[in-house]
Amino acid sequence: MSEELSEIGLIGLAVMGQNLALNIADHGFKISVYNRTTSKMEAFVSKHPDTPGGLVGKAELKDFVDSLRKPRKIVILVKAGAGTDAVIDELVPLLDEDDIIIDGGNAKWTDTIRREKDLTAKGLRFIGSGVSGGEEGARFGPSLMPGGKESAYRELQPIWEAVAAKVDHETGKPLEGAAPGKPVEGGVTCTTYIGPNGAGHYVKMVHNGIEYGDMQMICESYDLMKNILGMDAPSIGKVFEEWNSGDLDSFLVEITADVLQQKDPATGKDFVDIVLDAAGQKGTGKWTSINALDMGTPAPTVAEAVFARCLSAVKEERVAASEILPGPDASEAPSADELIPAIRDALYCSKICSYAQGFQLMRHAQEEYDWELDFGKIAQIWRGGCIIRARFLQKITEAYDRDPKLANLLLDPYFCDAITKGQTAWRKVVALAATHGVSAPTFSSALSYYDGYRSARLPQNLLQAQRDFFGAHTYERVDQPRGKFYHIDWPVDGRPQLEA
Amino acid sequence: MSEELSEIGLIGLAVMGQNLALNIADHGFKISVYNRTTSKMEAFVSKHPDTPGGLVGKAELKDFVDSLRKPRKIVILVKAGAGTDAVIDELVPLLDEDDIIIDGGNAKWTDTIRREKDLTAKGLRFIGSGVSGGEEGARFGPSLMPGGKESAYRELQPIWEAVAAKVDHETGKPLEGAAPGKPVEGGVTCTTYIGPNGAGHYVKMVHNGIEYGDMQMICESYDLMKNILGMDAPSIGKVFEEWNSGDLDSFLVEITADVLQQKDPATGKDFVDIVLDAAGQKGTGKWTSINALDMGTPAPTVAEAVFARCLSAVKEERVAASEILPGPDASEAPSADELIPAIRDALYCSKICSYAQGFQLMRHAQEEYDWELDFGKIAQIWRGGCIIRARFLQKITEAYDRDPKLANLLLDPYFCDAITKGQTAWRKVVALAATHGVSAPTFSSALSYYDGYRSARLPQNLLQAQRDFFGAHTYERVDQPRGKFYHIDWPVDGRPQLEA
Repeated sequence: MSEELSEIGLIGLAVMGQNLALNIADHGFKISVYNRTTSKMEAFVSKHPDTPGGLVGKAELKDFVDSLRKPRKIVILVKAGAGTDAVIDELVPLLDEDDIIIDGGNAKWTDTIRREKDLTAKGLRFIGSGVSGGEEGARFGPSLMPGGKESAYRELQPIWEAVAAKVDHETGKPLEGAAPGKPVEGGVTCTTYIGPNGAGHYVKMVHNGIEYGDMQMICESYDLMKNILGMDAPSIGKVFEEWNSGDLDSFLVEITADVLQQKDPATGKDFVDIVLDAAGQKGTGKWTSINALDMGTPAPTVAEAVFARCLSAVKEERVAASEILPGPDASEAPSADELIPAIRDALYCSKICSYAQGFQLMRHAQEEYDWELDFGKIAQIWRGGCIIRARFLQKITEAYDRDPKLANLLLDPYFCDAITKGQTAWRKVVALAATHGVSAPTFSSALSYYDGYRSARLPQNLLQAQRDFFGAHTYERVDQPRGKFYHIDWPVDGRPQLEA
Repeated sequence: MSEELSEIGLIGLAVMGQNLALNIADHGFKISVYNRTTSKMEAFVSKHPDTPGGLVGKAELKDFVDSLRKPRKIVILVKAGAGTDAVIDELVPLLDEDDIIIDGGNAKWTDTIRREKDLTAKGLRFIGSGVSGGEEGARFGPSLMPGGKESAYRELQPIWEAVAAKVDHETGKPLEGAAPGKPVEGGVTCTTYIGPNGAGHYVKMVHNGIEYGDMQMICESYDLMKNILGMDAPSIGKVFEEWNSGDLDSFLVEITADVLQQKDPATGKDFVDIVLDAAGQKGTGKWTSINALDMGTPAPTVAEAVFARCLSAVKEERVAASEILPGPDASEAPSADELIPAIRDALYCSKICSYAQGFQLMRHAQEEYDWELDFGKIAQIWRGGCIIRARFLQKITEAYDRDPKLANLLLDPYFCDAITKGQTAWRKVVALAATHGVSAPTFSSALSYYDGYRSARLPQNLLQAQRDFFGAHTYERVDQPRGKFYHIDWPVDGRPQLEA
């Protein structure tokens, strides 16, 4: 007697893999699971005997493959990099034409482009899907960013839409009881086909880069309240709680409010005060910044957020330096009533600039890789499930609805208006951070970006003139068409010659 | 009758190659030259029949190689990248054991590491030498940063020391009439053995990254005087001229004074005003920033300088944005008498931070690649020949003389004192840029770096707590030793559990 074949398979039963498998099974899909260490698979399957779809554990990879309905759909959730390649290499000989491998790990998009090409050449199909939302998201509804051939995604779509987060269009709160495989009426289902080959993993990377910015900006807000106003953690937590009911309504602001009001179970002190200020990172913020540099697309705010983590990591060096390097003389601080709303404005304006940079990156990447990204839709599928989920993202969707070819988010009337209203306060906060000696790299960087972007004339005319002076790099002229290059024979003896 | 063999050969007769060949010949070394396009070589050789050392042109690569004394020393000065590999591939079969190839191009240090390894395996020797100073430098004395096996450099040393820039120890002005092959008495010869394999090209890259920062900071100074004080270019040029007689004495400040006082030959207007504000770049600033991100070493100021060039490049987008995005309401500006010295202080303090970041990069790279860099010596060979040459570099040499293990330049008494004196003005300038809407990314970023580096406590405790909340990334505690990681089971129902 043959058992009924599974709809889908999943390889890699670390927490993310387990949670995504349970999420899939919960939505009525029978799923086979495989893990290199068999005991882990056995423990997992025996712990969850009664899921609606059913979990089928297989100890041998061949049995696992044979347990899947064709064309097979196999999700890989292992450590990104060499681990993914190793699993693919093992799988390929066992698969049939048109079977679909789905990489749900945090792969670098260039690896996904390579893998998709290799597997296509072998007659297989490959989807690289960003999965955001951490363990919670994987279990109860992640934001899913699949890239690959559209025809391959169509096969996966019912499952991906079933397991993705569903949120209320207005509030962004999770919707309960959505039917498996069906988009939610009046709600947002947090997945959509992103584009060919590496597009999904690219968009996931930019999501993470934006997340780096968001987290650092929240830290700067906290630090300003702490250092300039002398507020304690719970009081600052209350401020974030209040902010979470306005434009800043978002998962990260919400958990910040919780975290700041949390007590340390060991000492009873305010929890954040016992946490060491040395941040870790896993590389996606770095990738985003490097990609920005490689494409020549300004994303300084993400880069500052990454460097801020790096600087935090040299804790011992900083402690030693703090004994030697003086700060500014004390200067007068504004009142809490004045400063707190100003910090909120600074946070919102900086956030807008940071997202503008992230979307600029995607705009340039689509030219580089010949994708056609739907920016409004991307903002929408970030409404739920993922770490940067926020009500604010709806404004981005609306901006791209108004103008799908929008050159920069800043130019949309809503965001332009938000900055117009907030900029006086934002500027004051950046100035105050400078005079009070509080490091605010992303607030400052975002403001420099804004002021640079809105400048018809920047001082790089001087820089080009310098380059022409010492390196004969040539310059263009404001009174001549673009693309005509001139050079002066420096250093000057008498009058220099103008050459076309 | 056999002709006397040449001391050295050079391949690649673009301007840099021609100039370096003439420089070598001028110092009494007979040099063979080769160029893929023979006519170019012939024109070059026939134009310079009477150099002290003598130029020998060869049309065939084999004849070129045969014209060199063994062990042969062959300098390659071609377009970095595939061009260099192509020339090496052609050369290798013609060479004998222990012959030395010297790559003087702007190679990426990782390519140099690869090439050195490959050629060593073939019994040859390879030196990757940074050559800084542009066309002028190559002709009359560059700063040379050779990396490779020390024994190989010793063979090249007499020639490299002869052709390198020689400057007065006090003034940094070029010394005339130094005898070929001999270090200058009381002066600085701008070359030294840097370290194994890619060390020379790495240090050259950091030099260029620092150059990006210097140029951008000068631009910000100019922009602030132009926009806040409404000064015209020649008046700003006079300010730079004055600054050039103090701590800021440097090639770039000097040429800035010249450039700003230059008239456009075509229109008679101030030259910089007709130059288009769209900066180009060749990639070394980008490499520096990417390497900083890869190593996790904070170098935000270089990255901001690179992004500022990128932002300047989207000229049409900025012009369009300038019509839409508002700036701040007019606020009161300080007087020129007050602001100009403050900008000078801001420039000097920011410059110190930027150099501190550059030297931090080299410090971490030497751990990464197992080099032993002499930071004081590196600062010294930048005193002349190269683009960032400045009196200021002597202070860096002295700092590393005082403490070769200095953790960060900022901690040296001289630099600490300079910032202590300048910081009030620096902070005011950053604040003023923010409130007046003048983009000052490197001034702000350098200040954020300074304030971050001198903070015993940064707000990344909150960030680690957030990461533990949504990703179970764990945290360290201030009341426990480093390296012990904890996790709270968020979200909290009742009291969370503390786990080791």
